[in-house]
Amino acid sequence: MKILGIDPGSIYCGYGFIKAHDKHGQSAGFGKNRQPLYLGSGRIVMSARKPLHLRLKELYTTLAEVISDYGPDEIVIEKMFFAKGIKAALSLGHTRGVVLVTAALNNLNIYEYSALEVKKAVVGYGKADKSQVQEMVKQILSIGHSLSSDSADALALALCHANTMKFGER
Amino acid sequence: MKILGIDPGSIYCGYGFIKAHDKHGQSAGFGKNRQPLYLGSGRIVMSARKPLHLRLKELYTTLAEVISDYGPDEIVIEKMFFAKGIKAALSLGHTRGVVLVTAALNNLNIYEYSALEVKKAVVGYGKADKSQVQEMVKQILSIGHSLSSDSADALALALCHANTMKFGER
Repeated sequence: MKILGIDPGSIYCGYGFIKAHDKHGQSAGFGKNRQPLYLGSGRIVMSARKPLHLRLKELYTTLAEVISDYGPDEIVIEKMFFAKGIKAALSLGHTRGVVLVTAALNNLNIYEYSALEVKKAVVGYGKADKSQVQEMVKQILSIGHSLSSDSADALALALCHANTMKFGER
Repeated sequence: MKILGIDPGSIYCGYGFIKAHDKHGQSAGFGKNRQPLYLGSGRIVMSARKPLHLRLKELYTTLAEVISDYGPDEIVIEKMFFAKGIKAALSLGHTRGVVLVTAALNNLNIYEYSALEVKKAVVGYGKADKSQVQEMVKQILSIGHSLSSDSADALALALCHANTMKFGER
């Protein structure tokens, strides 16, 4: 099962692909010999100078290409309850709306997890900071090169979903 | 010039089409003999029971059909600064994001006006209530039938833009 994690922001949108097995698979989990496989990651930069609708079009087009290149089975995105303020919430809503509609137009299932669930699944406790998440993601997926925090957050979402699937919780 | 006004909400998305002339035209304005022409209006209902991404897909698909049916030259949407809270802002952001990306993918220019600007242009003062906007829209466009408040708000946006174009303010 190929999982695409997406971490949308108003300027950067991180994404990360892994291959994992669901509860019917043979080699699920984060154990030494049953590690999910890292397929790729990156981030989409939405030029702040462009008008909003063109920025969103850029996001849609690039994300549709990424989906077509990697062919994910499922998409994972962070569940949102909070934002720093009304303006930030509107801005984040715009990006999330485009990510969700791009996934839906590609007939992909979408799963949402809170930041707390992701940190618990990947680092082991909910108060882990960004650098701890980054380190654990690199360790679990045996990634030698550096990762942007957007890509690491996206991969962490994918890993959280793989873990949940492994235990058949959804 | 065909103008499509769009009033996005989290369940209903109103839209309204008018035909008007820009500053180079002969018959712009809201005067008796220079009225903009009412072409149509309606509202897209996003079933609250569906998961969010499918609701947004429904919005995208229907809006793309509406655009293809009427062939607008320009799209007008309300400028947002406020929302009732973070949750409402996120939700409104999702819908707006999809409206903006649908317009951009159809290579349409997008204009934004605040509720204050719209009320001033259509009713004459910024503190007009919904029913006053509704009545003025019906009067200006000689609409005999009833209008949902979503459609009326969408038509008011289109009229505000027509008025601004007439005076060459943008």
